[in-house]
This record gives sequence, C-alpha cells and structure tokens, in this order.
Amino acid sequence: FLGLATSWVTDAASPLPSWRDDGAKARIVEFVKQVTREGSDSFVPPGERIAVFDNDGTLWSEKPMYFQMLYTADQVKRLFPEHPEWKTQQPFASILNGNLLSLLAQGSPGLEKMLTATHAGMSTDEFQRSVAHWIASAKNPVTGMFYRKMVFQPMLELLVYLRANGFKTYIVSGGGVDFLRVFSSSLYGIPPEQVIGSRLKARYKSRDGHPAIVKTDELAFLTDKQGKPLAINEFIGRRPVFAAGNSDGDLQMLEWTTSAAGPRFGMLIHHTDASREWAYDKKSDVGRLDKALKAAKPNGWLVVDMANDWRQVYPPEKSRGL
Amino acid sequence: FLGLATSWVTDAASPLPSWRDDGAKARIVEFVKQVTREGSDSFVPPGERIAVFDNDGTLWSEKPMYFQMLYTADQVKRLFPEHPEWKTQQPFASILNGNLLSLLAQGSPGLEKMLTATHAGMSTDEFQRSVAHWIASAKNPVTGMFYRKMVFQPMLELLVYLRANGFKTYIVSGGGVDFLRVFSSSLYGIPPEQVIGSRLKARYKSRDGHPAIVKTDELAFLTDKQGKPLAINEFIGRRPVFAAGNSDGDLQMLEWTTSAAGPRFGMLIHHTDASREWAYDKKSDVGRLDKALKAAKPNGWLVVDMANDWRQVYPPEKSRGL
Ligand SMILES: [Ca+2]
Ligand SMILES: [Ca+2]
Repeated sequence: FLGLATSWVTDAASPLPSWRDDGAKARIVEFVKQVTREGSDSFVPPGERIAVFDNDGTLWSEKPMYFQMLYTADQVKRLFPEHPEWKTQQPFASILNGNLLSLLAQGSPGLEKMLTATHAGMSTDEFQRSVAHWIASAKNPVTGMFYRKMVFQPMLELLVYLRANGFKTYIVSGGGVDFLRVFSSSLYGIPPEQVIGSRLKARYKSRDGHPAIVKTDELAFLTDKQGKPLAINEFIGRRPVFAAGNSDGDLQMLEWTTSAAGPRFGMLIHHTDASREWAYDKKSDVGRLDKALKAAKPNGWLVVDMANDWRQVYPPEKSRGL
Repeated sequence: FLGLATSWVTDAASPLPSWRDDGAKARIVEFVKQVTREGSDSFVPPGERIAVFDNDGTLWSEKPMYFQMLYTADQVKRLFPEHPEWKTQQPFASILNGNLLSLLAQGSPGLEKMLTATHAGMSTDEFQRSVAHWIASAKNPVTGMFYRKMVFQPMLELLVYLRANGFKTYIVSGGGVDFLRVFSSSLYGIPPEQVIGSRLKARYKSRDGHPAIVKTDELAFLTDKQGKPLAINEFIGRRPVFAAGNSDGDLQMLEWTTSAAGPRFGMLIHHTDASREWAYDKKSDVGRLDKALKAAKPNGWLVVDMANDWRQVYPPEKSRGL
C-alpha cells in the first residue's frame, strides 16, 4: 500500500511535515542529530539504533475500542449462525450485545478468550486470509473510515524519518502478534519479524509429511506493562534508544528504554484532539493514560499534544494508495 | 572482528571460494540464482528471503562437547572455591570431574541446570562481560585453537553470499540465546536480534527507578526439534526458504522450511572429516545425525560432505582479524 506516498515523507531537507515546527518536532530532530553525529559522545552506532512503538493509540486510533476487538466482534457475528450457544456464553454474549466495554473489564482473561476465539484451531494461513480481507474492507463504526486509513500520518513520517537515519523500527503491542503481522508491512513499512505482540502457545504437528503449526487456546505471553521490556529483551536482545507509547501499558517500556546511559528518547502520545480524533486519558477504559503521564516529567519524556503538535492526524485522502 | 576479511568472500564473480566446484556448491548457486531472478516463477521477494542456520556443528565445531557446555565448565571451575558443596551436587560434580558426557545423558533437565548455573542471578551485563572475555581468550581443549577460530570458513562465505543476495540470515540454536548474542555479530555478522535460542524466564524489577531484567532458573523455551519451527514462527512470523543444520535436532526445522510451495533449500552438514575436523553421525552423543540423514534424500535436502565438499574447514590464519 505504502509505495506511492513515501517520497514526500522522506524529504531530508524538511522532515516530519505533519508536525508543527515547535517544541515536539524540534526535540525529535535534535535527538536524531545527536545520535547520528559521528565522532560525538552521543553517537549511537546504526546497529544499536533500535526504536520501539506501541501500536493501538500510538500508530493508529483505538476508539471506540481496540481495533483487534472490533475485528473479533466482526468474526463472532459472522460465525454466530453456526454457534447459537454463544448467545449465552462470555465473551461472545458481550460481543453479540455490542457491549465490548464489558470485555475490557475482564482484563487479561478477556483478552485471552478473545485471542482464542479468533486464533485457536485456525491454521496460520486461514487466519492471515481472514485478517487481510478485514483490513482491506472493514470500516470503523464511529468514523466510517477504513481502519487502515486511521493510522497517524505524523507517526508514519516519524517511522520513515527514523529509518532514513539508520534506526530499526519495531512494533511492541499488547495486541495479538499474528493479527498485526498481516498488515505491518503495508501500513507501517515494518516487516513481520519486527512485530512483537501477545501470542498463544502453538504446537507443531506433522501429518503425512505435511507439517503445520497450530495455535492452542493457552496464552504464551501477554506483551503489556512489564511484558513489554521482557519481550524486547527476549526478541531483540538489546535495549532500545527510542520508545513511543500512549498508555500506562507502555510505562515499563519507556522506563526500560530511557533509564540506561547514553542518549535516550521516550515519547507519549496524549490524545487531546476531540475534533479530529478523540480526547481521553486517565478516565478512559481504552488506552488509559495516568501513571505514565505523571512519570513523563521526572523522566524527561516528550508528551505529544495531538491537538497542538500535529498539523494533521490521518493521511490526506489522495496521498496514499490504500 | 570480521571487518578485515569480508572483501574476498564477497567476490560476486566467484562466490564460495572454500567450496569445491562440484555438486554441493553448484546446487547452492543455482538455488540463489532461481530465487533472485526477477520475473521468473521461482522469484522470491527480498523480504521473504529468510535463511536460518543451526549453530553448533553447522557454523562452528561442537567437539569434544557443545562449546557453551565448555564455557559453563570453565565458569564452574572458576567459581568452585566459593561453592565447595558443588563437589557432590549434579550437574556440577560431572563438570568438576571432567565428565561432561554424563551431563548430556540428562537431556533437557541437564541443559536447564546448565543454563541456570551460568545465567540465573547474574545481571545481563555481568553475563555478557563474562562471555565476551571467554570468547576472546578461551581455547578448545582438544585442538588448542581459540573457540572463535573454530568457525567454518565455507559457512561464513555462505552467510555473506546469501546476504549479498538479499537474504536475511538468522541463527536458530538449541543453545542459550544470551550466550550466542554476545558474539554473533563479530563471528558471523548476524546481529543479536537475528539470534533465536533457548531461554530462561525473566522478571522485570524496578528498584529506585533503576529497572533491571533478571533471569530466573526456570526454562522458558528450549529451541530444539519441534521447538525450532515453533520459535521461527514466533520470532520471524514467516516460513524460511533456506535452512541449514547438522543433527536430528534440526529435522523439524528443515521439514518446516522445505515442505511449503515455492523454491526451498534444506542443507545438512555431515561431519565426515576426521583429519581436518571430526567424523561422526548416528552414534555421536553430541550432534547425533541419524533420522535427519535418512530424511535427506526423500526431501531433496543437500547433504554436505565436509571432507569432499570443503576446500578448507577453518579460516586461514592470516585472513581474519580475530
Ligand atoms: Ca496503546
Ligand atoms: Ca547442531
């Protein structure tokens, strides 16, 4: 999808065009200059320029609900005729009643059941086809926009800008890794192997010389809160120098990234834009931002004020071949 | 370490100079031509050119014992004065008695205890320093060579050749991931984030704003046999097109790699060279090769005959800045 539109976001002379020319943008550009200035004390060799991004609420919107939950809801509705028993079983009943917020109240077990409902028993190929069809065609019930158009243009530019400066960009999301990997390349230019997310345990089965990897219904790892730095350490094996998130689930990832020696950058997206996107923080059920926002100042993290720091939120209609 | 010596192994006109110009080399070169020929049916886009390599016995030697076990033995001997109780405790007693083979007989629990003995309680930084010191200075008790000089020159050339042709090269080893990541860049040109290996569970601890990741003594994942394709799926999220191994522990990785549609390459290193390296297969306690060797023919895997296919085994003395 992304091919046609990248030239104007990589203009080295004026990077980050969708960011207003004030404090936030200046701090990002200054940081990148610091770590790329050869011979300086703050120079970071290219191989160590690891940048990690939360996904929901950081790279795309997350209202009225995390988009993967909306995908799941769509699948549950689609499969309901074959499963009448779901009408009285949780979490299906909540989904069928349109009461997704009650799923959130269930916390991890709720997420686990959701991942199970959408992943377990399906082969990898089947699941990928299902998600690919959904991301190509499904629309957000509130905005009426394609989900794939609800990515943040300033963050796409930031990803491109960092990569142009030798950074390796990763997604570290609490969402399901197999879901994200279907569209991470086309939406963000991030290949599947640079996506870290929650996952179910899987089994390797060989039948008549046709091996298959099949997901179980048991959660292997939940990539949220302290799970984020732990997964980063497991998958990448070195500490990032740049981390961006938007909620309390990112607190430990930012803390881990910025508490080591050398130049470090922590960024929080603060959703302050009720007219162009949404405005929410500590009272939101989705993407709650409270402790991490309080931790921003003492830790020197940049808090991006969406309403003021971004010229535009979503990609312009004609710029992207989506 | 590798910087000085790569120019002559990347000569595009005559790649793989340490491979004899016969069947094995010809098959590798033909495969790479196939997948890189744009417009052909067998073309594989660069992003999908994933190549996975076992480490012990595939990229470097593994006798008289997996090198990580020899590292562990060195550490146990070094720490023994502070732990007199080890004299009667397994697996330490076996190590102190020089009876490493009995550790192998313990299977996974033995490996788990070993990983624990060398990893648990140590901070990531301490462990890295210890391994870095060892790889820089320690020598193999049989050959008297530095361990870091016991890498296979033909395989170094193969890694460089594949990368020059748009492949992303990974290590997928049953050994401990934290151990391998210390020297994967300098020995093989493979960055830490492209090393997949066995790992202990870890905890994230924050003390006075100084967060740390500390290993527990519980094995999280053993990357052997079916654990190899499962870990590949978890970390990379797509099926490799090229896989190389040397033992029955690689059977499922090769099976998974080569059983899908499109061009696929499976390779087994057969240790047939008692004069320059070692000769062993189905009767060896280390790197046993039996079932996988039988599976090679029906699956079309290349079996590399070390004695006949390789002009030289180890890097020439003066070629590498090790
Ligand atoms: Ca988020
Ligand atoms: Ca091996």
